[in-house]
Amino acid sequence: MLRIIRQELESVDAQEMIAPTLHPRELWEETNRAASASFELMGLKDRRDREFVLGGTAEEMFVDLVRQFDLGERELPFCLYQFSTKFRDELRARGGLLRAREFLMKDAYSFHASSNSLDSYYEAMGAAYQRIFARFGLTTLRVASDNGMMGGEVSHEFLVEHATGESIFLTDGAGGAPIHQEIASVKFEHLNSSEPLRERTVQEAARGPTIADGISLYKEPAWRQIKSLVYRLDDGAYVLVALRGDREVNESKLKKVLGAKPFRLATEQEVLGLGSVVGFVSPLNKTIRTIGDTSLVSVRNFYTGADRLHQDTLNVTYGRDFTCDLLADLSVAVKDDLSPEGNRYQEKRGIEVGNIFKLGTYYSERMKRAVFTSSVGVRENLIMGCYGIGIGRTLQTIAELHHDERGLRWPKAVAPFDCHLVELQEADDLGGERWYTELGKHGASVLRDDRDLRAGVKFSDSDLIGSTYRVVLSKRSLERGGVEVRERTGTESKIVSLEELLTLLSGSGVLDR
Amino acid sequence: MLRIIRQELESVDAQEMIAPTLHPRELWEETNRAASASFELMGLKDRRDREFVLGGTAEEMFVDLVRQFDLGERELPFCLYQFSTKFRDELRARGGLLRAREFLMKDAYSFHASSNSLDSYYEAMGAAYQRIFARFGLTTLRVASDNGMMGGEVSHEFLVEHATGESIFLTDGAGGAPIHQEIASVKFEHLNSSEPLRERTVQEAARGPTIADGISLYKEPAWRQIKSLVYRLDDGAYVLVALRGDREVNESKLKKVLGAKPFRLATEQEVLGLGSVVGFVSPLNKTIRTIGDTSLVSVRNFYTGADRLHQDTLNVTYGRDFTCDLLADLSVAVKDDLSPEGNRYQEKRGIEVGNIFKLGTYYSERMKRAVFTSSVGVRENLIMGCYGIGIGRTLQTIAELHHDERGLRWPKAVAPFDCHLVELQEADDLGGERWYTELGKHGASVLRDDRDLRAGVKFSDSDLIGSTYRVVLSKRSLERGGVEVRERTGTESKIVSLEELLTLLSGSGVLDR
Repeated sequence: MLRIIRQELESVDAQEMIAPTLHPRELWEETNRAASASFELMGLKDRRDREFVLGGTAEEMFVDLVRQFDLGERELPFCLYQFSTKFRDELRARGGLLRAREFLMKDAYSFHASSNSLDSYYEAMGAAYQRIFARFGLTTLRVASDNGMMGGEVSHEFLVEHATGESIFLTDGAGGAPIHQEIASVKFEHLNSSEPLRERTVQEAARGPTIADGISLYKEPAWRQIKSLVYRLDDGAYVLVALRGDREVNESKLKKVLGAKPFRLATEQEVLGLGSVVGFVSPLNKTIRTIGDTSLVSVRNFYTGADRLHQDTLNVTYGRDFTCDLLADLSVAVKDDLSPEGNRYQEKRGIEVGNIFKLGTYYSERMKRAVFTSSVGVRENLIMGCYGIGIGRTLQTIAELHHDERGLRWPKAVAPFDCHLVELQEADDLGGERWYTELGKHGASVLRDDRDLRAGVKFSDSDLIGSTYRVVLSKRSLERGGVEVRERTGTESKIVSLEELLTLLSGSGVLDR
Repeated sequence: MLRIIRQELESVDAQEMIAPTLHPRELWEETNRAASASFELMGLKDRRDREFVLGGTAEEMFVDLVRQFDLGERELPFCLYQFSTKFRDELRARGGLLRAREFLMKDAYSFHASSNSLDSYYEAMGAAYQRIFARFGLTTLRVASDNGMMGGEVSHEFLVEHATGESIFLTDGAGGAPIHQEIASVKFEHLNSSEPLRERTVQEAARGPTIADGISLYKEPAWRQIKSLVYRLDDGAYVLVALRGDREVNESKLKKVLGAKPFRLATEQEVLGLGSVVGFVSPLNKTIRTIGDTSLVSVRNFYTGADRLHQDTLNVTYGRDFTCDLLADLSVAVKDDLSPEGNRYQEKRGIEVGNIFKLGTYYSERMKRAVFTSSVGVRENLIMGCYGIGIGRTLQTIAELHHDERGLRWPKAVAPFDCHLVELQEADDLGGERWYTELGKHGASVLRDDRDLRAGVKFSDSDLIGSTYRVVLSKRSLERGGVEVRERTGTESKIVSLEELLTLLSGSGVLDR
């Protein structure tokens, strides 16, 4: 796998190097990423009490390297990459190699003098990624996604569509680009526009605090309610977020609206302190900042809490009865929602095998001296992109897609061996050593099974491992002129001589590595 | 480099795998290596307060893997290896890649049912090591050495003789195997056997506490004194170690005599508490355990302290005036000492690039269930060996031995590129792309320098990097029939066509990788 990745990265002029695993914590403090709780960094101190983190990604290390040089514009762009072990303090390591605390990753970092240069390199790297995954036997979708902890402007995940995937993405069924659920926008249809606007009233409401409690009491669908959530920001301020009762808040979108600062749901006590009650919070007459989801304008005559226990306000309509300080696209897009273009979303799942990010000047603004001297002698911030492939999870994804009940059926390019040479033990030496040596000499990788075991056991192991060809050497096969060869992915076997076997291997491309 | 190591390890049937870098601390506690202060482990806790160490070596991890299987004798022996980043909390990282806190290491672990099997595998691996280093252009000496932190019975360092090396070893000038200073034995000649035994007396001694102070006072050589050192063991006991005044204690040897328990020099206060004075301690009439170096029997009429400040005892002879509880080989062997066979040692320095250890049952005795079932159905402890190569320090050693004032002169097998293609920029396109592609197609690795820089700068960079061949493409070279090629280690250059260049490369073996 690494060979294929190296070949394709070389085709976009990326250069391999290696950076340390132990990153001085100061570097992560320059970009403020050390403080982020969402990025599971593991830290340690050495005997002199210097603090380090075990690298989760290596933007800071590569910027720190690059800024040691006094780069001029004509030395740009360039791209550096490494294969190295990455660490994440995962609470839920799971799915074998899919989510591990320690994993091999290919990470690349490109440096540019202009956005145009980044844009074109980003496309070239994206195309290289498609080629890499195709050679691995994987069909990938390039799905627009959230930048999250990486910072920057634009990013895409490379997803292999699979029911077990943890990435949810949406397609619009009309040929539009697939989009990650985290960032998919929703266009809302009006659900009861023909209904007359009714007079607003306040009344007793003997219900619990949940949306379901409201449905039980009023026998009306969830969309008839307003869901009001109070968040507390890092700086102590509160924000009320209101949306249609049947919708969920997309916290990735909310984070963008709030400016990436940390936030959490307010406690019951804090809500009381604001003069309301959890379960009966309303967006009306608020002194704290209010942010509404665009779903609020799709319904008239909502009901909502009245900021007192067991009191609801009925017939509330956005615009007439309340407005928010900001109306924004805040809800989680799901199946059958409308895309901004008016197409219905389909919901799919995929396994993320790679990702690419346009970081822009996110890092160079935060780290000192991350600059280059332009052709007119001005110092400007370096413009960056970064590009990751998780080796372990890609391997597991290939296995997920290429196996049967007997074991693995690796695509030729990533099979552990070209030939699994099974020698059936007979009294005589069948010349296995010669076959092994000859095949190796011609460039084939061979796993030789000369164990003293039953044929059935050896065949099972061969199927389990999934090398490209099973080559059986027995007294009978020799009598018939050679070895019996069968492709792991095929059903037919045939007897071939050494020469015929080499021709077969060569013709099927496995000797071209 | 890794390719060469893989080839040679495959020739001794070792199998590559990868173990985690984060080792659960419990494993290191099973073998009691976590407690050792001399093995600079870095530790950390995860978010759930589980403790890990960053692997320094991986014996525990491999034993923990192997003991998951219920191994039978006929599945032995086997050898597993990995290339992985290792960590040491070095206080003095130095010498570039020679002593780093984080480094790439090849570590291999073999498992055996018998000592005979380990012995023969140890020899096979040692031979593979010699081949590996020879292919790297390094002549190595296999030097018997101390097992130190690794435990076990026998070990050897692979040293490249070099004045800057930190390993000191001795040769006997008579074809005997070289031996590390840490474990070299010394045979002492009697220095004054013709001197009559004189009567023992105690007298005032107006001297300071050092050996040099004694020399000043008595105008006698250092060997005339007894050096007495008091050590405090971990369990609170004291030991007096006595040796000839001109010799140093070899703490590796002392550790073996004391049973590998931690110890330190006693403080002045502790020595007072034992009824003596630092600088005037004598080995006579001691109630604490005394251990003497064999050098004590090589001199008669020593002088020594008298356990009181400014009092010395003169004319002390081992056997007549005192004996020790144990007489052992405890001093550091140096140049011109006699080996046990009676040859004079020569002292040399070397850089350690690899090491091999017969661990025996050291780990399997300490770790539960590290057993196999013998052919007669009995559970026995696994017998182990381990084998390391430091990749970074080997690389640096190659560079140390293969360079000149202009830069590196890598041996062909480890050169970063076969060809450094220097294109001298002219107005016209000289077809560099075609040369680059054709050479690559035939298996040569090529670094193409098509930068818009002066020829001198490009030649300097080429010499600095040290690829095997410098291939210069210029208008003039084309007029003369091709490119100008020169070996980095040679002085002559010639004009060759593409065909001739390929023949040259092929003939010199660089395309055989």
